[in-house]
Amino acid sequence: MPVEPDRLQATISAELAQRRAEVVQIDPRLAQLADLLIGFVTDGGKRLRPEFLWCGWTAADGGVDPASLTAVYQVCTALELIQACALIHDDVIDRSDSRRGKPAAHRAVEKMHADAGMIGDAEHYGLSAAILLGDLALCWADDLFAEGALAISEFRPGADARALPVWRSMRNEVLSGQLLDLVSTAAVAVDPAAQAADAMRINRYKTAAYTVERPVQLGAVLAGAGPETIAALRAFGTDVGIAFQLRDDLLGVYGDPTVTGKPAGDDLLEGKRTLLLATARAALDGELLAELDSGIGTAGADVDRLAAIIAESGAPEMLERRIAELLGSGLAALDAIDQNGGPVIGASAKTRLTRLAVLATARRF
Amino acid sequence: MPVEPDRLQATISAELAQRRAEVVQIDPRLAQLADLLIGFVTDGGKRLRPEFLWCGWTAADGGVDPASLTAVYQVCTALELIQACALIHDDVIDRSDSRRGKPAAHRAVEKMHADAGMIGDAEHYGLSAAILLGDLALCWADDLFAEGALAISEFRPGADARALPVWRSMRNEVLSGQLLDLVSTAAVAVDPAAQAADAMRINRYKTAAYTVERPVQLGAVLAGAGPETIAALRAFGTDVGIAFQLRDDLLGVYGDPTVTGKPAGDDLLEGKRTLLLATARAALDGELLAELDSGIGTAGADVDRLAAIIAESGAPEMLERRIAELLGSGLAALDAIDQNGGPVIGASAKTRLTRLAVLATARRF
Repeated sequence: MPVEPDRLQATISAELAQRRAEVVQIDPRLAQLADLLIGFVTDGGKRLRPEFLWCGWTAADGGVDPASLTAVYQVCTALELIQACALIHDDVIDRSDSRRGKPAAHRAVEKMHADAGMIGDAEHYGLSAAILLGDLALCWADDLFAEGALAISEFRPGADARALPVWRSMRNEVLSGQLLDLVSTAAVAVDPAAQAADAMRINRYKTAAYTVERPVQLGAVLAGAGPETIAALRAFGTDVGIAFQLRDDLLGVYGDPTVTGKPAGDDLLEGKRTLLLATARAALDGELLAELDSGIGTAGADVDRLAAIIAESGAPEMLERRIAELLGSGLAALDAIDQNGGPVIGASAKTRLTRLAVLATARRF
Repeated sequence: MPVEPDRLQATISAELAQRRAEVVQIDPRLAQLADLLIGFVTDGGKRLRPEFLWCGWTAADGGVDPASLTAVYQVCTALELIQACALIHDDVIDRSDSRRGKPAAHRAVEKMHADAGMIGDAEHYGLSAAILLGDLALCWADDLFAEGALAISEFRPGADARALPVWRSMRNEVLSGQLLDLVSTAAVAVDPAAQAADAMRINRYKTAAYTVERPVQLGAVLAGAGPETIAALRAFGTDVGIAFQLRDDLLGVYGDPTVTGKPAGDDLLEGKRTLLLATARAALDGELLAELDSGIGTAGADVDRLAAIIAESGAPEMLERRIAELLGSGLAALDAIDQNGGPVIGASAKTRLTRLAVLATARRF
C-alpha cells in the first residue's frame, strides 16, 4: 500500500503544531517566523522522501497497524524537515529569490521586516532568520526521528539502534554534498571530465542519498529487513536518486517556471557545476565553448542563449539517455533473488517503487 | 569527582576524528573545512557545559566506571557541538569578525578562498561555508547525543527516552532565544522596562538554558535522578545561567579583549539589547540618554564614550548586585531537602557545583 496522504499530512500538521506551541510559549512574537517555517513544510513538496521511506518499510514487511503508521509517519515528517533545512539554507547560499513559486524564506522574512517598519538592515535580518529557521527545522527533524524510532523500537526491538547509523550517514552525506558543491563551484574551471566526475559526486551525496537511497534504507532497517533486501533497495535508490537529480539539471535550464516554481536559468546564472553543463562543455569547442564559459556564473548573462548553446551540444539528449539507463539499472536492482531463490522485494512493493521511480525521474516539476 | 579533562578531550578528539573521516571519504577537498570546525571545538571553550552535565550525572549518583564515562563524555561532546553551531551561526548573524581571539569561522573561510585564488565572492563563500559547518556541528551533536544516550540506556534502562525531551527543549530554547534576540534587536526602541524584560527572556532561553539548566538536568535524568533532585538542579541552573549571561554583558563592554578573545564594545556597535543597556537607559535621562541611544547600534560610534555613559548610569554596579543575588539564590536551591529530611544533592556534588557556579559568574573571559 502507498503512503496515505491524508494521514501523513495529519501527522505533519499535528507534530508541527506542537512544536509551534513550544516556540510561541517562549515568546508570542515568534509566531510569524514559526508559521513561515511550518507553511514551508505543510504546503510544499512532492512528499517523495516519505513515499520512498514507506516503500522501504513495506518492502520489509513493516506493519500497517495504526501505532506503527503514526511512528513511521513521524520519521517521514523528519525527512521533510531535513529537506526544509537544506532548501532554506541552500537558497541563502545560492542567493535564490524564489522557491516553489513563492519568495524564498530569507526573502519572505526580509519583506516582514520592511512591512513591519523594523530597524536595521532588512536583507541581513532575512538572512539571519533563515539561518535560524533552517537550524530549527534540523532540530525538529532530529527530534522526530528519535521519537519515531524509539516508538517503533517498542514493537520492533532494536529499530532505533539499527536506524541511527543510517540517519547519521544521510545527514553527513547531504551536508558534505552541499559543501562539495560550494567548493567545486568556487574552484578555478577544470577540464570537462573532472567537472563531470565532480557533478556526479555532488548529485550522489547532495541529492540522491537523502532523496531515495537513505529513505528507502531507513524504512527497511526500521522494519528489520535482511541484508539482501537492504542491498537491493540501496542499489535501486542510488541510481534512481541520481536520475532524479539529472532530471533536476534539465528542469533547471529547460523547465517551465510556472510548473517548477523557480525561474529557468538560475542554475546557469549561479554557475552551478551540473552534469548537464559538464557534458555540454565536453562536446563543444572553439567559439561556442568560449561563449558558454564566459556566460556561466555571470550576472545578467543571456540565459536563453546559454540554454540554446547547451541544447546545440547535444547534452540534453545525452542526459535523457543517462536518466533512462539509471532508471533501468535501478529497477533491475529490485529483481535481486535471495538465497532460497525467491525475490527479496515482494511484487506489490516492487510495483509501488517502480511507479515512484518513474514519477521521480520523468517529472516536469 | 570533576570531569577528567584529559579523558573528555580524548573523547572529543576521537569522535571528531571519526566524523572527519566520514566527510573526507566523500571528498578529500573537504578536509580543510572539516578541520576548521574540528579545531573550533577541540581548541576552544571553557568546557563549562560538560562540567555542568557531569555534575548533574554525579549529583544523581551516576556511575564512574569507564563504560559510563565514555558514553557520558559523548553527550558532553554533543553539548560542545551545539555551542559550536550556535557560535558559528551567531557570528554570521552578528557580523562578528573574531571569536576566542581568532577570526570567526566565516572570516577564516573567506580567507581560505582568497588564499587559494578561488573564483566568486569570497565573503559570500565564507558565509555559505559557515552556515553548512554550523549545520554539520548540529548534526554531529544530535548523533553523539543519540549514541551516548543509547549506550547509557544499556546499563540505565530508559535513559534515552528520559533524556530525549530535555534535549529537545534545550535546542528549542536556544534557537527560540536566538530568534527572539533577532526580533527584539530589530524592534523599534521600546521603554526600558519592556527592554529589560526582553533582555532577561533572551538571557534565559538563548544562554542560561543550554549553558547550565539543561546540561545539569540532562546529566541527572540520564542517571535516573528523582524529581526533587532534578527540580533543585534546574532551579540552580536557571539562576546561575542568567548570572553567567549578565557577566557576559559586562565583559562585552568592559572586558579585556586579550582575555575575552573578542573586541570590547562589539555588543554596543551591534545594538545588542542587553540587560546592562536596558538598566542604563532606565537610570538615565536627558542628554546622556539621547547620546547613548544615538550611538548604540551605530557603526563607527565611539564605544569608549558609550561605555563611560553606561558606567556613569550606575548600571554595572546594579548588574554586579544582580549577579550576586542570582548566584546566592542558585546556590540556595541546592539546599533542598527530600521527603525524608535528607539533602537531595550530596555534599561532594554541591561543592563541585558551587565552585563551577562561582567560576561561571566571576570569570574574566
